[in-house]
Amino acid sequence: MPDPYLLTPGPLTTSAPVKQAMLRDWGSRDETFIAMNRRVRARLAELAGAEDTHVCVPVQGSGTFAVEAALGTLVPRTGRLLVLVNGAYGRRMVQIARVIGRDCRFLETAENEPVSPAALDRALDEDPDITHVAVVQCETTTGLLNPVEEVAAICARHGRALLIDAMSGFGALPLDARRTPFEAVMASANKCLEGVPGLGFVIVRQQALEAAAGNAHSLSLDLHAQWRGFEQNGQWRFTPPTHVLAALDRALDEHAEEGGVAGRGARYRRNLRVLLDGMAALGFVPLLPAALQAPIIVTFRMPADPRFAFDCFYEGLRRRGYVIYPGKLTVAESFRMGCIGRLDVAVMQGAVAAVANTLGEMGVRSGAPQRDGDSTP
Amino acid sequence: MPDPYLLTPGPLTTSAPVKQAMLRDWGSRDETFIAMNRRVRARLAELAGAEDTHVCVPVQGSGTFAVEAALGTLVPRTGRLLVLVNGAYGRRMVQIARVIGRDCRFLETAENEPVSPAALDRALDEDPDITHVAVVQCETTTGLLNPVEEVAAICARHGRALLIDAMSGFGALPLDARRTPFEAVMASANKCLEGVPGLGFVIVRQQALEAAAGNAHSLSLDLHAQWRGFEQNGQWRFTPPTHVLAALDRALDEHAEEGGVAGRGARYRRNLRVLLDGMAALGFVPLLPAALQAPIIVTFRMPADPRFAFDCFYEGLRRRGYVIYPGKLTVAESFRMGCIGRLDVAVMQGAVAAVANTLGEMGVRSGAPQRDGDSTP
Ligand SMILES: Cc1ncc(COP(=O)(O)O)c(C=O)c1O
Ligand SMILES: Cc1ncc(COP(=O)(O)O)c(C=O)c1O
Repeated sequence: MPDPYLLTPGPLTTSAPVKQAMLRDWGSRDETFIAMNRRVRARLAELAGAEDTHVCVPVQGSGTFAVEAALGTLVPRTGRLLVLVNGAYGRRMVQIARVIGRDCRFLETAENEPVSPAALDRALDEDPDITHVAVVQCETTTGLLNPVEEVAAICARHGRALLIDAMSGFGALPLDARRTPFEAVMASANKCLEGVPGLGFVIVRQQALEAAAGNAHSLSLDLHAQWRGFEQNGQWRFTPPTHVLAALDRALDEHAEEGGVAGRGARYRRNLRVLLDGMAALGFVPLLPAALQAPIIVTFRMPADPRFAFDCFYEGLRRRGYVIYPGKLTVAESFRMGCIGRLDVAVMQGAVAAVANTLGEMGVRSGAPQRDGDSTP
Repeated sequence: MPDPYLLTPGPLTTSAPVKQAMLRDWGSRDETFIAMNRRVRARLAELAGAEDTHVCVPVQGSGTFAVEAALGTLVPRTGRLLVLVNGAYGRRMVQIARVIGRDCRFLETAENEPVSPAALDRALDEDPDITHVAVVQCETTTGLLNPVEEVAAICARHGRALLIDAMSGFGALPLDARRTPFEAVMASANKCLEGVPGLGFVIVRQQALEAAAGNAHSLSLDLHAQWRGFEQNGQWRFTPPTHVLAALDRALDEHAEEGGVAGRGARYRRNLRVLLDGMAALGFVPLLPAALQAPIIVTFRMPADPRFAFDCFYEGLRRRGYVIYPGKLTVAESFRMGCIGRLDVAVMQGAVAAVANTLGEMGVRSGAPQRDGDSTP
């Protein structure tokens, strides 16, 4: 049986050539690998329109490692971080700040509402001790697109540094340092860039990074030291995930061939359209209104039909070749289907057909959730 | 041109099937992947004779990440760490302890001498506040094998916990929890296990780990939380390096097929023999006496011949298909050649022949270093 398509927020389905790029072994100090480091770092900074002002620092590990490296290195021990929270990944930044001992406040909105620029504006007015603000671009908990441009404008007006967790949208959602001023963007090889997991990166304003020597709470996650390593000799401080980097290098070729951020984003929007229309025809209702829905992952409310059991649904789709994700909401039962990775309209149509067949098998007539106002069981 | 052989301490040459195991995409929450996690964790604990007492906790990132996770999680904030240092990796543990704010002392011996069990015994006698001792099994700086059994016996007698950085020898040098009592062993997928880089792991006494909740200085590198994640649902807390894990799974099959630690160690000892004999015939002199030399990597003293230039030597070998490593000594000029990874006697013979040809090309008549007592230029 071929591998199932991964309709998840990662790890994702990647192309065959991306995986085939891992069929070699590289010496980490060898010139060809050093050139690959240089190329990947430069291309990532360019994708964020940041090549003149920022540097890209890759970090071994998962995306969370890159987020922690950014918070620990950029927020000084005497700083104060304000996190805008409307889901699990905003909350995770608060948790990181607490574990690593950075003074941290947060502003929380409901999981189906964007973070509030107005509340941010007031908070920055009231608290001059806030040095850094952090926000999640696409909150993968729900698939919600936060208003990072407005947030960035407010931070700029108040002279506070902005850190953007762009993990789940980087490479498909526009984010340009010239229009959206940021101090750092944290992202990963394995979401919209369609590489394999094992590598995160931070695109960070060079001046801020230069000033951050000695801040970090960790040796492995010291972004400043990691950057100095690259500057000195083009090499990683510690053993790099060579195969993962090679896969990302190839994935960036494919990203460029597809037309960069615009092309990648357009494919994902087509995928989203097919998914939303197809699921709607089966009665399913997404959590978010269209205006808040990013073309990354969709949260569907749990069907009301008592014959619907998520585990059976998951298994039925799995058998048909599609892996989905449980919900991550704290407020309501839900499940999620992603539209990122090496998936196209035909795959999404296949996924919708598999949903229809699985419902049929379960004897579920409609994916409609309990209507609002109905009492929850 | 085929990839060069990597005669380095990592990344290493891996087998074709290990790399081919990365040609698939796994959902990180899917049953097949969860089974793979379980299998890999169990097999790693068994390799250390630790399956009844310890658990294996994999950590995303390079080996240093696993070392930092172990120190930060196991040494409590009120603890005191004593590190036995005779090279860069012992020094790195001291550096980690300082950055993460753990009280740390060290006992240093020369880079060409083993750490001193007698000095450790005295230090533990004198300082009852030392809670943990850390040592490097094979100090990759030189290739020296430290007396970890004696160190473990002394720690056990004094009732102090021992943390062993077994990064460069795990899977080829014997290390058994029943004979060498340890609290934790830190190692990596990409050395003697012959997987690809991107994953470290810690084999840690379960009782110690249970007692370590809340110790860690980091969210990403919290070994206790990472372990709780695996215990809860068999899954990684944060996105795992799925392809790297699959490669390790396959690499562990090959390790077992080769006869486990004994078989793997025997091949590396044959490789070492060919390397030492062949290089001796060309006049090269290793830094270490045979009794201290681990079958992992050899440090050779720099030839005295003024026509010998390391960069040309490196390039000449590279062109012939062999990548070597610069020295990492602080005391003398040197270079290093590894004998681990998917290399056999024929490869090592080829490497020695390439050294001979490169010397010829450079007009160097002998690899002999300055005799001891000669003044260094
Ligand atoms: C917005 C966001 N931030 C952070 C992360 C954490 O990344 P990782 O699971 O690679 O640690 C994710 C993962 O999905 C994410 O979507
Ligand atoms: C003994 C030892 N400890 C730690 C490390 C660090 O591992 P990494 O480079 O994967 O961070 C190495 C790497 O060679 C090593 O040999």
